[in-house]
Amino acid sequence: MATWLTVMTGKSGRIFPGHRLSAAGGDATPQLGQTRLATRPRRPVVVARAGISGASRTRLTASCETAGMRITVLAGGVGAARFLRGLKAAAPDAEITVIGNTGDDISLFGLHVSPDLDTVLYTLGGGISEEQGWGRAEETFTVLHELAAYGAGPGWFALGDRDFATHIARTSMLRAGAPLSAVTRALSERWRPGVTLLPMTDDQVETRVTIDAGGDAGSRTVHFQEWWVRMRAAVPAVAITFSGAQAAAPAPGVLEAIAAADCVLLPPSNPVVSVGTILAVPGIEAALRAKTVVGVSPIIAGAPVRGMADACLAAIGVEATAAAVAAHYGAGLLDGWLVDDQDKPAVDDPRLAGIAVRALPLYMTDLAASAQIARSALSLAGELACRAS
Amino acid sequence: MATWLTVMTGKSGRIFPGHRLSAAGGDATPQLGQTRLATRPRRPVVVARAGISGASRTRLTASCETAGMRITVLAGGVGAARFLRGLKAAAPDAEITVIGNTGDDISLFGLHVSPDLDTVLYTLGGGISEEQGWGRAEETFTVLHELAAYGAGPGWFALGDRDFATHIARTSMLRAGAPLSAVTRALSERWRPGVTLLPMTDDQVETRVTIDAGGDAGSRTVHFQEWWVRMRAAVPAVAITFSGAQAAAPAPGVLEAIAAADCVLLPPSNPVVSVGTILAVPGIEAALRAKTVVGVSPIIAGAPVRGMADACLAAIGVEATAAAVAAHYGAGLLDGWLVDDQDKPAVDDPRLAGIAVRALPLYMTDLAASAQIARSALSLAGELACRAS
Repeated sequence: MATWLTVMTGKSGRIFPGHRLSAAGGDATPQLGQTRLATRPRRPVVVARAGISGASRTRLTASCETAGMRITVLAGGVGAARFLRGLKAAAPDAEITVIGNTGDDISLFGLHVSPDLDTVLYTLGGGISEEQGWGRAEETFTVLHELAAYGAGPGWFALGDRDFATHIARTSMLRAGAPLSAVTRALSERWRPGVTLLPMTDDQVETRVTIDAGGDAGSRTVHFQEWWVRMRAAVPAVAITFSGAQAAAPAPGVLEAIAAADCVLLPPSNPVVSVGTILAVPGIEAALRAKTVVGVSPIIAGAPVRGMADACLAAIGVEATAAAVAAHYGAGLLDGWLVDDQDKPAVDDPRLAGIAVRALPLYMTDLAASAQIARSALSLAGELACRAS
Repeated sequence: MATWLTVMTGKSGRIFPGHRLSAAGGDATPQLGQTRLATRPRRPVVVARAGISGASRTRLTASCETAGMRITVLAGGVGAARFLRGLKAAAPDAEITVIGNTGDDISLFGLHVSPDLDTVLYTLGGGISEEQGWGRAEETFTVLHELAAYGAGPGWFALGDRDFATHIARTSMLRAGAPLSAVTRALSERWRPGVTLLPMTDDQVETRVTIDAGGDAGSRTVHFQEWWVRMRAAVPAVAITFSGAQAAAPAPGVLEAIAAADCVLLPPSNPVVSVGTILAVPGIEAALRAKTVVGVSPIIAGAPVRGMADACLAAIGVEATAAAVAAHYGAGLLDGWLVDDQDKPAVDDPRLAGIAVRALPLYMTDLAASAQIARSALSLAGELACRAS
């Protein structure tokens, strides 16, 4: 097994059940270079929820097995999917549950499209367009062209033929009365993503963006996809809301997966319209506050790695920096935070008191890089879980 | 203009408004050879509805313009579409209204498929697969293969990508609350079929086939398409019913198109599950009985030209012959009947008293052949309308 995970003794209960202590030193020494675990100064971590602060840290290192380990991940689209691919490589025998954002879901041509759930399924199932990060590989666009010939809109959302099949299958099952969670389970049977993918809710939640229409036109509110895809988030958002969220319930299995998790990871997803949407479903954030939560910054050197998260952060008055995003989540939710080496000053940012921050390379340039980030997240979670125990 | 139409004098009202009397003889002589108008013995035609029997027939022949002529056609799928192509060529300036069968409509993958309406649109709009007679030319099957990968059924109905777009567009409009007639009008805007296509009804009518399940299994009833496509009508049907027909209303414009028609034509469509279904919608048959109706036999030499009409006829106890089909429609509905030369004896079949029968080549081998059949139908309708006036 890999020797990358720092493992604590003295933990009670089943936190990282697969961990095996090994003889100290030798080949069991963790590869800490990339996570800078060994080099950065330590500071006390306040784990507010457990009422235990600065628990003494036994510096035993150990080899680690992730078999049977339960990891729950809150996922948006591309960033989450690539992180999950790394996580699967890092913890191939773990039980991974993914809670997917459905606020981006949209009805197009009368079909229910779930962009984030599909990106996770396609990526983990081997069907993703690697170039785009979303949509199907080897895609064709016959259906869309034909729909355009009928004058059926909208013209600004690209759906390929292979992708259409997913939406047809999903919509057909939904119309027959199946909840989205059951539909997602059915679609997963084909993709075999190696994780349990759950929508955050079976209820309808729609992310809406209020934009300044300019001049005397006042503001108007559009579906998130219209702002994101059609306007490319170039029109400033004055507000982002999650319509229906307050009345929504977590989908079956969501709270259970959080409760049973050894740790919860936040991939480098959009903090506002991916993770933020999931947190807006009543009960989910409260459940997370009782767990060890480690996040990966989607912002590197003041810019989103991908997408236009900065435009979303601006809408809620949060600076587009790795530190500001962590502060936005807050120490009540977040226990650990991975930032890129370029954002190393965040490690000692006073706004992040109570959050253990690690700096490491965060660009998911390939599977190896993604896996290393996932290992670092698990490593940090392991440390923090131990401190809290 | 073509000189093919026999035109009567003495008719009152606007029956064939485009008809122009010409000088007798010369180049105005109708090309009667193919319709055998001139050669077969005439017999009295009883036009029951008008109470006028055997009206004297003025043997004037004339050139004819079809501009402004109003023709209404009851249409099934492939046979009707090919006939309509011929009719458009024969009467390019006529106002043609097509009342399409929707009893074959089926929900597949949650999408509303209207096979007969689509066959008419694709054929007249230039998008049909000429080889098949149905479906789109240059078709691909990516969506269907993907749906199969999801395990979504049924596997026995072929829908191509281009075709899927039609069903997606239709279903989307239906879900938004548009009736099928409005949806058909919207789809027609793309295909510009050169006719006004109306569904027989906006209500749901489903053609169902009761089959003998064999042995002690008794009988079971399936959707027409399951019997027709999946079983290839090889399992004997013991009954064919039109579920919902009794409660259905003709779609907007249907009764008006019949009332305003100078003549009504029945193409060589299936008498049971195409024309028969349309006739099952309350009000339509009664409206037809007040008009001059000419049909084209779908049976030649005891066999259907295409499809498995014989299996449908067997289910309702009607012999698969040109004469038996006309007798099934009856003289109350049918005024004229075109049969193939091979079925010439039908001309004097006593069962067809009251129906003017003409024998001519009925194979629609190409556009010219179809146009000639349409001309013959119009010619006969013109004669009969005159007799009734």
